[in-house]
Amino acid sequence: MPETVPTRETIEAAHERVKPYIHQTPVFTSQFLNGLSGARLYFKCENFQKIGAFKARGGLNAVLSLSAAQLANGVITHSSGNHAQAIAFSARKTGTKCYIVMPDNSPKVKIAAVEGYGADITFCKNTPEDRQRTVDEIVARTGATFLHPFNNYEVVAGQATAAKELIADAGAKLDAIVAPVGGGGLLSGTALAARYFSPGTKVYAGEPEGAADAVLSFRSGKIEKASYVNTIADGLLTHLGDKTFPIIKSEVTDIFTVSDEEIIQAMRYLWERMKMVVEPSGAVSTAAVLKNRAVFEGKNVGIIISGGNVDMGRLPF
Amino acid sequence: MPETVPTRETIEAAHERVKPYIHQTPVFTSQFLNGLSGARLYFKCENFQKIGAFKARGGLNAVLSLSAAQLANGVITHSSGNHAQAIAFSARKTGTKCYIVMPDNSPKVKIAAVEGYGADITFCKNTPEDRQRTVDEIVARTGATFLHPFNNYEVVAGQATAAKELIADAGAKLDAIVAPVGGGGLLSGTALAARYFSPGTKVYAGEPEGAADAVLSFRSGKIEKASYVNTIADGLLTHLGDKTFPIIKSEVTDIFTVSDEEIIQAMRYLWERMKMVVEPSGAVSTAAVLKNRAVFEGKNVGIIISGGNVDMGRLPF
Repeated sequence: MPETVPTRETIEAAHERVKPYIHQTPVFTSQFLNGLSGARLYFKCENFQKIGAFKARGGLNAVLSLSAAQLANGVITHSSGNHAQAIAFSARKTGTKCYIVMPDNSPKVKIAAVEGYGADITFCKNTPEDRQRTVDEIVARTGATFLHPFNNYEVVAGQATAAKELIADAGAKLDAIVAPVGGGGLLSGTALAARYFSPGTKVYAGEPEGAADAVLSFRSGKIEKASYVNTIADGLLTHLGDKTFPIIKSEVTDIFTVSDEEIIQAMRYLWERMKMVVEPSGAVSTAAVLKNRAVFEGKNVGIIISGGNVDMGRLPF
Repeated sequence: MPETVPTRETIEAAHERVKPYIHQTPVFTSQFLNGLSGARLYFKCENFQKIGAFKARGGLNAVLSLSAAQLANGVITHSSGNHAQAIAFSARKTGTKCYIVMPDNSPKVKIAAVEGYGADITFCKNTPEDRQRTVDEIVARTGATFLHPFNNYEVVAGQATAAKELIADAGAKLDAIVAPVGGGGLLSGTALAARYFSPGTKVYAGEPEGAADAVLSFRSGKIEKASYVNTIADGLLTHLGDKTFPIIKSEVTDIFTVSDEEIIQAMRYLWERMKMVVEPSGAVSTAAVLKNRAVFEGKNVGIIISGGNVDMGRLPF
């Protein structure tokens, strides 16, 4: 697999590869949110995607891009969140052995979801060192291929297919697309999709104030860590990678931070007005658009709703 | 307007009439709920419809079917729920004066929604007599046309368009379609759509145990009232009308009752697994399918999700 930034052809091939396994999620509109933002909004609803998040796309493309010899030894990743489900789901669909390393304090509901896809779970202490050591041990023993949640070009090409579909299905030329940013897999894929399939469409990101590493990196020109991490948007805690950051640096127009209060308000609009279950991370792009009316007013704006995996017993409203 | 049961042509004309104003809502599938039911389920998501419920269809068709002379005097209905919003929305879309009679103890959020569509609200005491007296006074004063929430063939023809779209979009021949039943507008429309557009597809209804008038009427052959009314499914409290009941009697295969616990469980599956905000009444058809595995196992089953208007501050989970 060539280690280069995904091309137009790479993303087209990724789309053909994952299409049989994913939902072509709908693009929704809302008169109410159009009114509130002053823009025409096109919501790409990846909360309705398999496993409840866009990550099914990247996971599938990464697994389906492996050679038969690699697949024979299985795949492995570490995650307590949507990426674990994405890899477990993708492995099951392709009949591949799957190892997931999870912190031993992971929520039961997430453990159950990964078990539901038949993955082999190994628990570790919730430290980066213990996590890596556990992964390394399993790789040494099994020869499984490690699939990083975002710092992997096949993952990026897979995530790009969400914006590719949005561009094709919106029914209007988009002036802008807004995606949330955590490790940057979705954002870099979105930026590449816009460059190849909708030249002239600007790409923006929303980021939680309580995990504001990407905006720092974007301003300073090198990968930075957040000065503190404390946000309800638990899918966006990580910092950028050396594969995702250069794409973001060259292709993204701006990154806007939003507070947890703004995220929860946007989430409530999406639930109450659009009848969609959206996780906090999934509402960040909407929050960024509502907060920056001057940037988006009068424009056709694509918004990527990244996921809908929430614990109904612990809602913020 | 001929006072006859809607024909195939009537429903086709209704669909053309309402199409420019409504969302063509998606048909969703869920591997999880397929597994749980043993059937292949096709969910027609009218929770994503304008005003958050299928009633936009019937309201629009009723308003758009009036003559210019009738429209000039406005329209009127009584409702504290989705029908009030549907008529107010439809009147606004067509530039028609709209009077809504609501009980003076209606929830503020529902009053605000109707006000948001620019309707003229008159409050009454929450008794059938006071409600009717208030409507009669306004009709006498203004000449507005009264539009019944369900016992009206234009409303029935409008509601039929949801099942018509489901049949066209499911991508499989449906063995059955299941709709919730309250006054029977949606159920009778669904049954007519199946008869005309998918002969051989059986139509079933789900009804709350705590408002079980339709099943009683279906068994006895005449319109009955429920022996008691107490259910979380507040959109399904009313009994059948003399226009909806004969259609249901001749076209519907069976009516299944479900408890509030079964409704809440189905609702939770729809929220957690399908990421959809669905109101209790909207989950009744799903609950009926999950409860009657022997009837639906191995079949292609269309499920009408009727609406998604819930108060986020008062969830049952």
